[in-house]
Amino acid sequence: MTAFADRLIENVRRAGSPLCVGLDPFPDKIPALFGDARVEIEAVSRFSEAIVALAARHAGVFKPQLGLFEQFGHEGVRIAEEVTSAAQAAGLVVILDAKRGDIGTTAEGYARAMLGPTPGFNADCVTINPYMGLDTIEPFLALAERDSKGVAVLVRTSNPGARDVQDLNVEGAPIWRRVAAMLVPHTERLKGATGWSGLMIVAGATYPDEARALRQTLPNALFLVPGYGAQGASAADAVASFVTSTQGREGGVVNSSRSVTYPQAAQTAKTMDEWRAAVGAAMIQAASELHAACSV
Amino acid sequence: MTAFADRLIENVRRAGSPLCVGLDPFPDKIPALFGDARVEIEAVSRFSEAIVALAARHAGVFKPQLGLFEQFGHEGVRIAEEVTSAAQAAGLVVILDAKRGDIGTTAEGYARAMLGPTPGFNADCVTINPYMGLDTIEPFLALAERDSKGVAVLVRTSNPGARDVQDLNVEGAPIWRRVAAMLVPHTERLKGATGWSGLMIVAGATYPDEARALRQTLPNALFLVPGYGAQGASAADAVASFVTSTQGREGGVVNSSRSVTYPQAAQTAKTMDEWRAAVGAAMIQAASELHAACSV
Repeated sequence: MTAFADRLIENVRRAGSPLCVGLDPFPDKIPALFGDARVEIEAVSRFSEAIVALAARHAGVFKPQLGLFEQFGHEGVRIAEEVTSAAQAAGLVVILDAKRGDIGTTAEGYARAMLGPTPGFNADCVTINPYMGLDTIEPFLALAERDSKGVAVLVRTSNPGARDVQDLNVEGAPIWRRVAAMLVPHTERLKGATGWSGLMIVAGATYPDEARALRQTLPNALFLVPGYGAQGASAADAVASFVTSTQGREGGVVNSSRSVTYPQAAQTAKTMDEWRAAVGAAMIQAASELHAACSV
Repeated sequence: MTAFADRLIENVRRAGSPLCVGLDPFPDKIPALFGDARVEIEAVSRFSEAIVALAARHAGVFKPQLGLFEQFGHEGVRIAEEVTSAAQAAGLVVILDAKRGDIGTTAEGYARAMLGPTPGFNADCVTINPYMGLDTIEPFLALAERDSKGVAVLVRTSNPGARDVQDLNVEGAPIWRRVAAMLVPHTERLKGATGWSGLMIVAGATYPDEARALRQTLPNALFLVPGYGAQGASAADAVASFVTSTQGREGGVVNSSRSVTYPQAAQTAKTMDEWRAAVGAAMIQAASELHAACSV
């Protein structure tokens, strides 16, 4: 099977932008056109399917936020499984945003759950938390290596609380740099024919200088960049870690969730056609901005 | 409703030991008496119910390991929900071992999923990962404060990889001490009538000196102590952070999973009665050792 890194970068090239559409199912924000998601879980399912159909047209990568499916209990998890399959069937690469972190046999369980075949999610990639150390990451890497999957490790997040732990200074450098350095020897294991590695790192768009520094440390890691759009970072900042290739600047994906799935015009749409037009327009705008930022 | 910290400590006092029975459903280890868990998920359900019945007799606290239920997909999550309810109905306090960590609205989603009423797990407490900072913890604390629940924050885990991040030295002290210090102002929020706080910390039994240092920093936090039993720490080491009270030494719970749910004698049992006797004996032995360690 094609390496995850190659599948991802090929999808980015085909889509013409590094846009990753994030899906955060908020019961209060899902338009009434789909039903009332506060009382009827199938409204979440219908909304998610409609987002997947538009994402497949306007982007190459899709990131469901598992915590917001889990709030609906095991039925929410079932819908997240179905959405993952539907997105893959529509040609999208799926990064499951699960931020799992555990060790030993439990980490193996999570790896099977997120990346393994049915009854697992069979996602292409999963986000994980490194606080417990390399023990956490190894079982995911082993499964990813065997089954051509990816692993996205939280390194430098874009939230204010990142200062509480990630930014603490260890012998002259913040912890997030130490976490990045610890990943270096492992990037080769998930390297594809394109030269990119499927050992991704999560690095927020709101710190472009830090993203460039991380690129020095990890020259072939693909970046998963949150913080663009609703969280305020510009397209140029979001692709700060990208490097120039024959295909323009590339080096990962930039996530946008709320701005492209709940744009203002979609929230007041009276018909499904109006809703599709509004969400499609928001995705096109994000993709265009990111395309432009990758063309300079 | 009684504060979580008081419910937990009352259950420990009633049970006569701080034993927390951990349930890690390994398909290969669940005895054939319950069916073949590798092909039939209801075997997981039957095994879990049988463990809950014995745990309710021999311990006060129960910790299902969510990652090992998630490996069975959404049906595994359904069983984990049922096991949580069954354990509570049997009088156990349930700490859901989910190690979630995210921020903002996603953290709120996870908090509802783990601690909220149906369709959430409605667990009494959940384990969380602090790598993203206080942003991660606040939504769980807010829900816990409102609904008399608990939150157990990973501080000092017992795995070798703990050195990769937690042990890094920040101005003369390891990161895990900084994480502990960051929790101090919040312990009051979940304080019960017993004086104990439901803002628990996870601190491995394999580092008793560090556990005592953490107790200095967090005098009224309840400790969730992994690493006793299969992982090799003694009962005395496991309760190193406990303090003397009128009820003997107390200050948290000590988890044992494999040693008390898959003891050797249970794996070769020919009948359910033999299996119950073997598992019951293993729980009694762990409870007795911990009771003795708390009596000196």
